[in-house]
Amino acid sequence: MERNIKKLVILGSTGSVGTQTLDIVRAFPDCFEVIGLCNGFNTPLFKVQLDEFKPKYFSTLGDIESGYGGAKAAPAEEIVAMPEVDIVVAATVGCVGMPASISALKAGKTLGLANKEVIVMSGNLLIETAREGGATILPIDSEPSAIWQCLEGEVSEPSRLIITASGGAFRDRTWASLDDVTPDQALKHPTWTMGAKITIDSATLMNKAFEVIESRWLFEIPFEQIDVTIHRQSIVHSMVEFADGTLKAQLGPTSMGQPIQHALFYPSRKPNSDLPKLDAVTMGSLTFEEMDQSLYPCFELALEYGKRSGTYSAALAGADEGAVELFLNGKIKFTQIPDLVSETLAAHTSIADPSIDDTIEAARWATETTLARHNHSTILS
Amino acid sequence: MERNIKKLVILGSTGSVGTQTLDIVRAFPDCFEVIGLCNGFNTPLFKVQLDEFKPKYFSTLGDIESGYGGAKAAPAEEIVAMPEVDIVVAATVGCVGMPASISALKAGKTLGLANKEVIVMSGNLLIETAREGGATILPIDSEPSAIWQCLEGEVSEPSRLIITASGGAFRDRTWASLDDVTPDQALKHPTWTMGAKITIDSATLMNKAFEVIESRWLFEIPFEQIDVTIHRQSIVHSMVEFADGTLKAQLGPTSMGQPIQHALFYPSRKPNSDLPKLDAVTMGSLTFEEMDQSLYPCFELALEYGKRSGTYSAALAGADEGAVELFLNGKIKFTQIPDLVSETLAAHTSIADPSIDDTIEAARWATETTLARHNHSTILS
Repeated sequence: MERNIKKLVILGSTGSVGTQTLDIVRAFPDCFEVIGLCNGFNTPLFKVQLDEFKPKYFSTLGDIESGYGGAKAAPAEEIVAMPEVDIVVAATVGCVGMPASISALKAGKTLGLANKEVIVMSGNLLIETAREGGATILPIDSEPSAIWQCLEGEVSEPSRLIITASGGAFRDRTWASLDDVTPDQALKHPTWTMGAKITIDSATLMNKAFEVIESRWLFEIPFEQIDVTIHRQSIVHSMVEFADGTLKAQLGPTSMGQPIQHALFYPSRKPNSDLPKLDAVTMGSLTFEEMDQSLYPCFELALEYGKRSGTYSAALAGADEGAVELFLNGKIKFTQIPDLVSETLAAHTSIADPSIDDTIEAARWATETTLARHNHSTILS
Repeated sequence: MERNIKKLVILGSTGSVGTQTLDIVRAFPDCFEVIGLCNGFNTPLFKVQLDEFKPKYFSTLGDIESGYGGAKAAPAEEIVAMPEVDIVVAATVGCVGMPASISALKAGKTLGLANKEVIVMSGNLLIETAREGGATILPIDSEPSAIWQCLEGEVSEPSRLIITASGGAFRDRTWASLDDVTPDQALKHPTWTMGAKITIDSATLMNKAFEVIESRWLFEIPFEQIDVTIHRQSIVHSMVEFADGTLKAQLGPTSMGQPIQHALFYPSRKPNSDLPKLDAVTMGSLTFEEMDQSLYPCFELALEYGKRSGTYSAALAGADEGAVELFLNGKIKFTQIPDLVSETLAAHTSIADPSIDDTIEAARWATETTLARHNHSTILS
């Protein structure tokens, strides 16, 4: 029995993916032991989680004393590297997840990666660190998870990855018409319920560019072989085309439950009546349309910098984080997000062959520069 | 080099799947050696094939002397079992493909199975024979091939197979309105170009029931876990649902080229510019609707008998063969196909625990009984 129990650490346990990961742990009490929980500032919920799951260790940006509920406070980077840990779920948001993710990979752990900024920041360094550490990265982000599942058991290289995009909250509007949209409007995703940062990134299509960058590194495939299709229903989570013209698609409800559970139980699959189901027999119409990239300035901008070497992609992730924060706080317009990101990137001095620390520093610089830029910006009316 | 060449026999080389198999052999001259070709009565085309591919052996129902083009005449059952043969493609139509398919399995060959009646006739015997002979069956029929591809690399059992159905030539008409349809009308399939027998079976939905029966045996899954969905575009060739609610689908153009090539090259995949391609990014709308089984009497009838043990499913395949022949020859109405099949099956005396010979005999009896039934039938106006 004991040997079947996977020992788990969750980075970002109070967020959307974090709580859904704990839902799965709760549904399979004999399969997982929570070794560590790490969060940011949502202290009330974090205390409830510590009380329920009784981890050995915790890390928080909030104010909780070591020993709370019997758990010892420790830095996240140390918790993930504990010898007893099997799998670390990086459910953090933004660039903050990088140091602990790197620590898990160096320690040879399995890293379930939902926090796409971590791989956007420095894909080649992340993959290299995993390889050197003997670690495995399992995608939890739903599109890369779909691609990973479609590649399972295939011995030949894929010829093309086709990432599906719902088009986000404003898919039926032109960019020019989005000047006055409010954070509340942008947070209404047509198909997915997710955290605030990723929902805004979905509305700008920045998120889709991040998934292209993420997939380029996770699946070690050139950018030229990755396409995006607008699929409004978010049922096909992505597709893979093979050399002979065959395609495979992974489908499911618009729920993070399936990709989280798949990473946790991989390679096996288990029934879970808590998860929503999709009846493929009666699922109606699924549509696939070419994306007009010119409609989405963030998409083009992100790919332009995401393809560059050095610290540009780290600065991209950092700048976007700053710009989204400004928008969510009502400081800039929705349509200023790409402008601010672009200005920060234009001012960035990239470091060739960066270290992990260079990458983290580039992202930090870009977030702060973007946040500061607003203060002397005259764009906002 | 030599060890990479697969040595091939094709049963039914002049038919639709047979000629497409030879197209692939022609596209990859360094990958295959045609050891044997077997056909029925299309002697002119068969001679062209013998001249081009120069097999060592041939078998024909036509009139060609042994030694033609340097090839020796031999029974198909012997050719498939030759020690040098690696893979046998059963591209025959109807029950006639059974003896040579069984012979290939007994000899431990890889059997690429396009001829679905062979497995409908006696699925359990076929699977048992393959197991005893150490043989492998690779589906070529496009829906089972799709399911097989979706199952690749999965370690857990599927929870459900979802077979897609175009709905055939008369998908927008009621059964009652089909009294006067001609063979020419029934042979106009909306999405696939195939041989006559399978195209009529598609119009009656008999073909879809055969695929359900075929999948039940190939994937060793209960009938209750196999569903059919009406998918008018024939782009998703079938789907598999797993325990966690995840689905995988295999997609492609409506071409037999991909499934044939996949069986020939399995497990690897090779580019082939001769094959049609599907652009998933711009593929538009794919629809999935529940099938109203009551609209398709052949579907219900076939599943009723296909689920029974003994020789019922062999008699089903045989009776359908007779009824389709009568319809194609203008002897009965389209809507009489299920009536005749039903009458023959009602008159069938099933043999418990049948041998292969019992199975072949049951199918032969059912075809002849159905053909004879027409002669003293008063149904035809």
